[in-house]
Amino acid sequence: MNKSLINLRYSDTDQMGVIYHANYFKFYEIGRTNYLKDAGYDYVEVEKTGIIYPVRNVQSTYLTSIRLGETIYVYTKIKKLTKVQITFSHEIRNDKDELKSVGETTIVCVDAKTFKPRKMPEDMIPKFSKLKDEDSN
Amino acid sequence: MNKSLINLRYSDTDQMGVIYHANYFKFYEIGRTNYLKDAGYDYVEVEKTGIIYPVRNVQSTYLTSIRLGETIYVYTKIKKLTKVQITFSHEIRNDKDELKSVGETTIVCVDAKTFKPRKMPEDMIPKFSKLKDEDSN
Amino acid sequence: MNKSLINLRYSDTDQMGVIYHANYFKFYEIGRTNYLKDAGYDYVEVEKTGIIYPVRNVQSTYLTSIRLGETIYVYTKIKKLTKVQITFSHEIRNDKDELKSVGETTIVCVDAKTFKPRKMPEDMIPKFSKLKDEDSN
Amino acid sequence: MNKSLINLRYSDTDQMGVIYHANYFKFYEIGRTNYLKDAGYDYVEVEKTGIIYPVRNVQSTYLTSIRLGETIYVYTKIKKLTKVQITFSHEIRNDKDELKSVGETTIVCVDAKTFKPRKMPEDMIPKFSKLKDEDSN
Repeated sequence: MNKSLINLRYSDTDQMGVIYHANYFKFYEIGRTNYLKDAGYDYVEVEKTGIIYPVRNVQSTYLTSIRLGETIYVYTKIKKLTKVQITFSHEIRNDKDELKSVGETTIVCVDAKTFKPRKMPEDMIPKFSKLKDEDSN
Repeated sequence: MNKSLINLRYSDTDQMGVIYHANYFKFYEIGRTNYLKDAGYDYVEVEKTGIIYPVRNVQSTYLTSIRLGETIYVYTKIKKLTKVQITFSHEIRNDKDELKSVGETTIVCVDAKTFKPRKMPEDMIPKFSKLKDEDSN
Repeated sequence: MNKSLINLRYSDTDQMGVIYHANYFKFYEIGRTNYLKDAGYDYVEVEKTGIIYPVRNVQSTYLTSIRLGETIYVYTKIKKLTKVQITFSHEIRNDKDELKSVGETTIVCVDAKTFKPRKMPEDMIPKFSKLKDEDSN
Repeated sequence: MNKSLINLRYSDTDQMGVIYHANYFKFYEIGRTNYLKDAGYDYVEVEKTGIIYPVRNVQSTYLTSIRLGETIYVYTKIKKLTKVQITFSHEIRNDKDELKSVGETTIVCVDAKTFKPRKMPEDMIPKFSKLKDEDSN
């Protein structure tokens, strides 16, 4: 499980006076990237090797709106794992542990040039499988 | 059903060289807003009456990436309707009718000051119910 | 001179209830891209040839705020031209011709791989020089 | 002077493979907000009192592009001060102290309802005048 602080920006708000709904996916992505980094998998470096992980599916349920000035964390776990894709689950909470949103993202391992799905590198499967098991406990 | 042209912006792209996944929700919102406008319901004016429709739930499945220079449309229908919320379904296609993504958004009728759910204005239910039926055919 | 309609998005707003200031640069870019397109220079296609035009300098003065629901145009001219860079001037106005902002952008011709400045393609200079002269009249 | 770490997001990039130019203004704003906060002036709280500080003028010169994975700081000083507006100067540098951009922002004190300029609260002028003097040394 990864817990990441989100640095809210003024530009994240909309005219409802709250954080714009589509921006939550930027926060989920921060959580996901930090999760991978914790596992020794720096996504910025990964992309340079010609493998990218575009998003295949996302969903988000919004429970309470987020306002600028709140201290916000995204919690990320691995929910599902196959040889070509990883599904993360996310929760956004403030520092009073109020649940703001729950979400899910599935990313797919793809060749950067062709955008065709490919198997994830050999060493990733057992490593991320282990992390997934830890997340379930 | 509403069909809206999306004017892609350079700022919609990311370093994968494609349209960034979270921006699809901006496009779904354009479709939704135009759908409401077609029904005589100008969302900008609605907000001034103290009723807002924040997003409760979204999901999106990405089928083929979108590249700058493509001509892109979002197609929007009403999928479900209750007294307090509307669920829209969306499809994004290019001008060759290639399916780029499918999505769904549920918006909830809320009081702008309290953010508490409230019934939609009386006249909306029958009007949108009729539109929903037309969308199903 | 190019006049381009800007399709404002809900996501362009911030919690002041107006269009967020940094987003004006996205609108200037739309004007600039359409200006180039009018001149037979499709920027999306240009990038594929290995030449890119990153922004070297921008400025913007905000006169009156823009609100969602307004009909907004960006007007773009060429102000200055050298062998390696083009400076555009921009104005944003609504459909009542109220001036919202004035801005300027300088883009530089650069090799996509090295990001080193290079001369613009031979045929561009006389063509854009002529456009610049027309813009001054 | 305020030095703020910028948490770059994947969504900050564009298809040139670098941080999109308009996003630098989001970073300048982070610096500005933190500068004010250091001075005991929490902008989120200020807005609730009915005073807002919209941007009147910005400019930015881009020296070297920023890539995801870099550690980036924005340095902010007060450059000029009147009774109704503050001009900040900004620099963005990475952790190797390479200069990425220089910028300037002028914000104006405005009544939140009317958007008409008004004098800044009495206590601000001497406080920020003192900070400006410290910044010049």
